[in-house]
Order: sequence, then C-alpha cells, then structure tokens
Amino acid sequence: MTDQEILEALSGVVIPGETKSIVQSNYITDIFVNKRNLFFTIKLPMKDSTHKGFLNEQSETAIKNAFGNDVNVHVNFTVTTSSARTLEQTTLPGVKNIIAVVSGKGGVGKSTVSANLALALRESGATVGLLDADIYGPSVPIMFGVRGKRPMMRETENGKGVIVPLDRYGLKLMSIGLLVDDKNAVVWRGPMASSAIKQFITDVDWGELDYLVIDMPPGTGDIHLTIMQTVPVTGVIVVSTPQDVALADAKKGIAMFGQAQINVPIIGLVENMSWFTPAELPDNKYYIFGKEGGKKLADEYDIPFLGQIPIVQSIREGGDLGVPVMMSDEQIVKDAFLGFADTVIREVGARNEKLAPTKPIEITER
Amino acid sequence: MTDQEILEALSGVVIPGETKSIVQSNYITDIFVNKRNLFFTIKLPMKDSTHKGFLNEQSETAIKNAFGNDVNVHVNFTVTTSSARTLEQTTLPGVKNIIAVVSGKGGVGKSTVSANLALALRESGATVGLLDADIYGPSVPIMFGVRGKRPMMRETENGKGVIVPLDRYGLKLMSIGLLVDDKNAVVWRGPMASSAIKQFITDVDWGELDYLVIDMPPGTGDIHLTIMQTVPVTGVIVVSTPQDVALADAKKGIAMFGQAQINVPIIGLVENMSWFTPAELPDNKYYIFGKEGGKKLADEYDIPFLGQIPIVQSIREGGDLGVPVMMSDEQIVKDAFLGFADTVIREVGARNEKLAPTKPIEITER
Repeated sequence: MTDQEILEALSGVVIPGETKSIVQSNYITDIFVNKRNLFFTIKLPMKDSTHKGFLNEQSETAIKNAFGNDVNVHVNFTVTTSSARTLEQTTLPGVKNIIAVVSGKGGVGKSTVSANLALALRESGATVGLLDADIYGPSVPIMFGVRGKRPMMRETENGKGVIVPLDRYGLKLMSIGLLVDDKNAVVWRGPMASSAIKQFITDVDWGELDYLVIDMPPGTGDIHLTIMQTVPVTGVIVVSTPQDVALADAKKGIAMFGQAQINVPIIGLVENMSWFTPAELPDNKYYIFGKEGGKKLADEYDIPFLGQIPIVQSIREGGDLGVPVMMSDEQIVKDAFLGFADTVIREVGARNEKLAPTKPIEITER
Repeated sequence: MTDQEILEALSGVVIPGETKSIVQSNYITDIFVNKRNLFFTIKLPMKDSTHKGFLNEQSETAIKNAFGNDVNVHVNFTVTTSSARTLEQTTLPGVKNIIAVVSGKGGVGKSTVSANLALALRESGATVGLLDADIYGPSVPIMFGVRGKRPMMRETENGKGVIVPLDRYGLKLMSIGLLVDDKNAVVWRGPMASSAIKQFITDVDWGELDYLVIDMPPGTGDIHLTIMQTVPVTGVIVVSTPQDVALADAKKGIAMFGQAQINVPIIGLVENMSWFTPAELPDNKYYIFGKEGGKKLADEYDIPFLGQIPIVQSIREGGDLGVPVMMSDEQIVKDAFLGFADTVIREVGARNEKLAPTKPIEITER
C-alpha cells in the first residue's frame, strides 16, 4: 500500500453536497502504514464536521475494497475553521471568528442563546470563547455558576497585564460581571464607558479560538458602536422571539448593523421561544407568541434563518437552575441548539469565502 | 308591612367586611308592597357588587322571619360607582373614573389586559368605555373585529362635532386605529402629535360611564405627559410580566407616574403571563418567565397587587382568534380577569375615598 495507491482508493469518497472528493480537496494527510494497519487523518472544514461518521464508514469500505478485508483502517479527524482574519493582528490575535449576538430589545433570551450557542459550537469540536459584554445585566456569572469568582491577571512577555478567562464546560469565559460588583456597574455606562469597555475586550488573553461569541448589550446604542469600533466582528447574529414587538425591535437591530458606516455582515436571525412544549406532553407545540414570525422576518430582509429554539419546561422546575440547557438532559432544546450551531458554522464559512475581513468601524467620536 | 317595619326587619343585614347594616348605609330604596308581594331596591356600591347573591338570600330570610313565609320578596339591585370627579367638568363629562393602563415596555400584553379588564368591569354591571390611545400599535380594531369601521360624527347642541364611539360586547369603543390608516399613523408621532391626541381624546362623546379604560402607548415618554395633561386620570394600572427585564421597565413606569410634577395615583400592578397552562393539562402551571416577580415588585414599591393573569392555550389554536378572552369559553383566564376587575373596583373605590380628584398635570411645554 503506497500513499499513491491509498489516495487512489479514497478518490471516490465525496462529502454529501460537495462536488470534489476528499482527495481532490486535499483533506487527506499523515498517511502511515504499519503491516496491515492503515492510519490517516481527514482534515475537515468545520462546516462538514457533522459528516465524520459517514466519512469514517465510506473510507473504510473504499480501503477494504481496494486492499482486502484484513486491513485495519484508523481514521483520525482534525477540524479546521475558516477565518476571514489574518491572525497576526494585534486585536484579539489568534481568534479566527468573532460572532456578536444582538437583540433589538431585552427579554428575548439573547444571553441564553449566546451561552448555548457557544456550548453547541464547542460540542462540534471547535475551541470557543464566550464574552459577556452585556453591561446592563451580565448573566454569564449566574448561568455558569461562577458568580463572585475573580479572574486572574497574568503578565505577558512585553510586561503587559492581561486577564485570564475562566474555564467551564470546555469554554473560555469572561464577563463584565466578574470584574465589577453590581453596585459599581454604573461605571460602564458613564462617560468612562467607552474606554473601559475597549480595555476590557482587548485585554483578555483568549489564546487560540475558532469562535469568540460576544453576548452584546440589548438594543441599539452607542455602546454597540464602541464595541464595533474596537473589535473586527466577523458577523452578527440577531435573536428575536416570534412576538410582533420583538420582531419590530429586531428590524431596528438589522437596520443598525446594515448602516453604511457600520456595515457588519449579518450571519442570520435565530428565533427564540418559538413554541412551548411541556415536558409532560413532549409532542405538543404551543405557539404562545405566534408562529414563524422570525422566519418571515428573515425572508423579508433576505438574511439566513438560523433556526428555532423552543421552550421546554417540566412542571417540577421553576426555570433558572444555573446550568445551561446544553449541559442538561433536555434533548429537544439541545438538538435545537446543535442544529442552530451547525447552521452558524455553515453561514460563517460561506461569509468567509465571499466577503473580505470586517474592519473595526471608524466613526467620528461624538 | 309599613316602610318602617320593613327597614327594621332588614336592619340586621350586613355586607361581609362592613360594620354598618345596609339600612344604616341608606342602601334600601323604592320600597313597594302589593298584597303579600314586597319589592325594594338595594343601591349597592360597585365594590360590593359581588355580594348580590348573599344579600338577596339574607334579605329574603330576614323579611320572612318578620312577616311570615308567605311573603314574596323581590330584590332589585342597582350598582353605584364612586367618583372623585365632579361630573359637570368639561373634559370627559359624565365619566366617573378614568383608568390609564400602562406598561414599562411593549410585549407584556397591555392591550389584552386593557380590553379584558374593560369587559370584566362590564360584566360586574358597570358601564364602561375603552379608549385605545396606543399610537405605536393600536390593537382594539383587530381585537374586537372592527377593523376598517369608520366611527360616525355627530353635531352637539352648541354646533361642535363629536366622535360617536362604537358599541361592541356592551362596551363603548374608540381607537386611534379607527381614525387613521396604518400608513398615516406617523402623524401622531410628529410635531402635530400633541394637539392631535388632545383633540382625539376630548372629542369622543362617551356619555355616562362608570369607568373609561385607556390603553396607553407602551413605555414612558412625552406622549404620556400629553395624555396626562389632557385627562384627569383617576389612577394608573401598571402591567408587567414576571420577567426580570419587564419588571425593570415596570419600575421606570412606576417612577414616572410617581414623579412630583405628575403624581397620578397608582391603583396597582397586575402580572400578565404569570404562568402557562396547556388546555390539555389544565392543572399544570409552567412558570416560564419566573414566579411571582410582579407580586414581589408590588410589595417592594408598596402598591396594591391586582392579580395574576395566566396564559392558557390549546394546541389546536394559534393564538389570535380576534375574540377577547372574556368573550370566549376559556374559564381559567376569564376567572382571573373577573378577580382582577373586582380588585380594581375595590382599589378605585378606596382611592376615591382617600384622595382628592386628580387634576390634569401642568408642565411647561418643551
């Protein structure tokens, strides 16, 4: 079995939905043969990571057809994430994709969506950070049970102090709520806000990340401009409920980020609280806030629709348990978030192929 | 049976919770005797109207004990509503109580609460008007199925043109949405807004009303000041959901109406969307948005808590049916609104006993 023969054997394996084979796309690396044992790696783009099982099976069949059933095939996978950024930049170096999660108003579950999106991306094999920049009500400390924890500082080689993010469920975590007490939070909203937030965002030592998810403050205001001026955001995800008022506010958000002077790509819209399902009646869907309002809005604005997240609750629990749903055994909602994350991975990949890197926006200070 | 003997016989009948008898309170009028038939009227304050059945039974027993079992007792009830207004005033003459329903933000169901409160007050025997002053999204036309109807104008004796409210389910109805097309609604928000709204409110011919319920625009803004400058509001009802963000916004509303220069009495807070009950599992309560946040907020601000309104839905329906829930067969929610209306009647009565009439506020025009 030469490398050439092995590649020929695998040249019929194609990822569903693609035209080139995994050999033509140069996904095969690190071929190693030891007696009748064959090892190789498939370097998979993140957007195709859901096809691991399929590729494993197809590769094994192809090899055994070519070389006999006694060959042991060991496929290793590495997942690569595309980026529209050059990773040598000074702002958030090593972060491939920065995703800002926004909502037109509060109360639509933006923080819940951000946290569980980050966890679902992690579950797809990516390295992920979650930055809670919601100055009006940082929720990461409670949601991840790290309230009152003070993050460590460390000094870099050039003598600069940086904040070390916390680690929880395999995520890197940082929240404005971990740096200030509730009572002092007002500093983030005063005249000092702009410089304080810039420093907070740029001084966290994220290391290498495929995705940094930023839980933005709700609404559309100066604080959003500050963050967009500081961070070259790959794209924005808009969260809405199917309620009319929430949709009207989501329109404002879409309009803001689409403005000529800001112009951040919108990755898409996700609908939260799409329906309610009692844990006691798992097949019933109650469209409390109306049906598919988010889907219609995404169609109207011609932006991708990223998914629907239902509310599932048991009568035995009161709501906030302090554990993100992705870490619970609530399979219906977990599946919704995994599907949503898959769509985000695909849409971010498409965005990186089509568009140039986002630059931090430049706006004359008011 | 002389009038004197009859009053003596009834002098032991006391409304639960009161100290004086119905005779001492001068509630008995129009006594009429024909052979062994006795007719009289109990003129009941609105707040005690739920005791009709009790009073009917007690009166009959008292009369039969005094004059024998062969007397036929016919009790007639009239319900009187207290007012802190003098009804000869020029703004909304004949309207005894003006209740403004407000919310800190949209999406909490303020319009649903306003409409069904008006219907529940009607069911208690009061004459009620509903004024939809929500310039941002008038909902009465859809909720009452009167979309596209144009209200009539009529000329008064002194040659002034007034708007005649519509009649539906025994309510008098008027909505900004009935006067302007959706596309022209913007006029209510421009520089003309203030005078247009003043004219709209004062030019409706409400006639005699026990309660006028005003569905206010959501939030706290100039438009609210305009309305408060135009109308001497008896009191304000604040609507909130148990969600944290909604409660935070409700606080802003409470603060606004409590400001020294506005100072409109707050009748209380009602919690909407308190829990979800599937019609298929009527005993189950799902506290989707948290539990009793509204009650805690009312306690914190020391204002009356007026009740909890649940969401009840069947999987067969999508939500908006175009019929207010008080006119449906949804007994759980109807009972909640009837209880809420009873509490409102009591609290408005208490307010009228304790406080002077509200004057339209005077604020220097900006």
